[in-house]
Amino acid sequence: MPILIAIPFESFIQILTMLATITLAISGVSQAARNEMDFFGALVLASVCALGGGSLRDLLIGATPVFWTTDLQYLGTILLTVIITVFSLRFITVGKGIRLRILDIADAIGLALFAVLGAQKTLEYGLTAPVAVVMGVITGVAGGMIRDILSQTIPMVLRGEIYASAAIVGLTLYMVLRSVVDEYSAMLLAMVCIILIRLVTLFCHIQLPKLKLPEKHD
Amino acid sequence: MPILIAIPFESFIQILTMLATITLAISGVSQAARNEMDFFGALVLASVCALGGGSLRDLLIGATPVFWTTDLQYLGTILLTVIITVFSLRFITVGKGIRLRILDIADAIGLALFAVLGAQKTLEYGLTAPVAVVMGVITGVAGGMIRDILSQTIPMVLRGEIYASAAIVGLTLYMVLRSVVDEYSAMLLAMVCIILIRLVTLFCHIQLPKLKLPEKHD
Amino acid sequence: MPILIAIPFESFIQILTMLATITLAISGVSQAARNEMDFFGALVLASVCALGGGSLRDLLIGATPVFWTTDLQYLGTILLTVIITVFSLRFITVGKGIRLRILDIADAIGLALFAVLGAQKTLEYGLTAPVAVVMGVITGVAGGMIRDILSQTIPMVLRGEIYASAAIVGLTLYMVLRSVVDEYSAMLLAMVCIILIRLVTLFCHIQLPKLKLPEKHD
Repeated sequence: MPILIAIPFESFIQILTMLATITLAISGVSQAARNEMDFFGALVLASVCALGGGSLRDLLIGATPVFWTTDLQYLGTILLTVIITVFSLRFITVGKGIRLRILDIADAIGLALFAVLGAQKTLEYGLTAPVAVVMGVITGVAGGMIRDILSQTIPMVLRGEIYASAAIVGLTLYMVLRSVVDEYSAMLLAMVCIILIRLVTLFCHIQLPKLKLPEKHD
Repeated sequence: MPILIAIPFESFIQILTMLATITLAISGVSQAARNEMDFFGALVLASVCALGGGSLRDLLIGATPVFWTTDLQYLGTILLTVIITVFSLRFITVGKGIRLRILDIADAIGLALFAVLGAQKTLEYGLTAPVAVVMGVITGVAGGMIRDILSQTIPMVLRGEIYASAAIVGLTLYMVLRSVVDEYSAMLLAMVCIILIRLVTLFCHIQLPKLKLPEKHD
Repeated sequence: MPILIAIPFESFIQILTMLATITLAISGVSQAARNEMDFFGALVLASVCALGGGSLRDLLIGATPVFWTTDLQYLGTILLTVIITVFSLRFITVGKGIRLRILDIADAIGLALFAVLGAQKTLEYGLTAPVAVVMGVITGVAGGMIRDILSQTIPMVLRGEIYASAAIVGLTLYMVLRSVVDEYSAMLLAMVCIILIRLVTLFCHIQLPKLKLPEKHD
């Protein structure tokens, strides 16, 4: 991938992070609208979605102060995204089905990007591959989990959909790939893998089997 | 304000923090009583309300171990406040309306004090003004949010009341004021501003408009 | 206790921690099965139960990166425990009453071990006895609290059962004992004390009195 290698690695990471921040901020605003919150509620939910996972990862690996406190681009991007999204909600009327589909795609992209970026940062901090997989999952799903808790719904990650599992598979692939190909390709392939697993299982209604308790009342 | 300037800045901060700790501990006990918890449940909720926001701020800006681990006054104050409040609940019978009003005022004072104190500490750690505003909001509202989550209610901050928004306006004022007047006055004026916005909008039932999804079923 | 003193202190701590990790991971899987989650949901809940309390303690006392990021035994133990438990759920059919009783005992052991281990680590970090008691309670109960929040139930610790209170009593005993007997005995006695209080009050349905609001409608 000669085009990619022409981009400095920091810019590559930066661009992906901003993209993930935007998609997750949009998903936060959309949840806020569904719960009939006001503009500031939307701003809070969007920030939680976009910054929650990465903040938790930074706290756990000891990378404090957390990432968004030293780079104002994150807060600025979220504020701008919320303003634009709230504005569009008022003027762009799309069918409910289409909107939900757009949201699912945005959410899958956010999950994939943050999971891989979270794992990559953890490796950079000198921690091992299994810990990086766990931190990647946390970075990808924690924001959405906190959003769901705040708006009183059982977190999606726990409702039997292939969500955290998509991240676990993709991140394991990433750990294997990075010893084979260059870092750029490993990250991009892992992200594509997570997005595909998430969307294919979502649109084809594929779920993992539920745990069962063999009840025998006594 | 010659009287204020006679007080050393540390004592000024200390007094305000203790006041905020007491008001938020009371709000925690009151929530515990509403949910029919026992004494220890009340102690847990009071501690979460009074220490949650500041702890989260300290974690995010990297000020660990968090503030209350190195100064036993906080735990002592909370324990004493809980004992006195639980005792008074048994003997002082006031009308429900009056009690709720007292609580709302206590809550508004706690929000205002912690928001400004949180922003001030963040600036002291060398972070920028926008980050200080966000940290101030977190310090002011996170304790109450965790309390609401633990007792299974949608956090007040997300229910369309002017709560986080009052803090955002007051903290922005604080950032402007501190380049104009002395630190004492800037902090006090910002606190008064937050309390006023919160109580006026609460008692006059002023709310921000809710976000609307223009539904078009397809 | 001559046998115990023959074991190096680190191994003693290690063994107890692994035991507590296993019991709390089992309690997480069991909650996941009750909520009809899939294998990965169970893995997430088990990890949250087993690592949540200790992670929060490490964050608050500034011991980052948190304990399980630098020692893969924790993640390995949890993964193995989840696999074995999920497998047994399918094949071992015990009555519901017996299973709940086994779970309550596992949960009490997890609470006792983590509470005392959490307090001990806090003292090692040079913090005072009251802070160590609070951190012990947090280490013992936070994992279960997060588990309950994620699966949308009011946390047990707040529902009037003698749970956090058992930990507070046992930890206070630990602080007294460690100036009288050796560290091994102080820790073990405190753990036994917490387990006994928890189980006796649970099986005899002993609860603390609930706080009451003397309602006088106005």
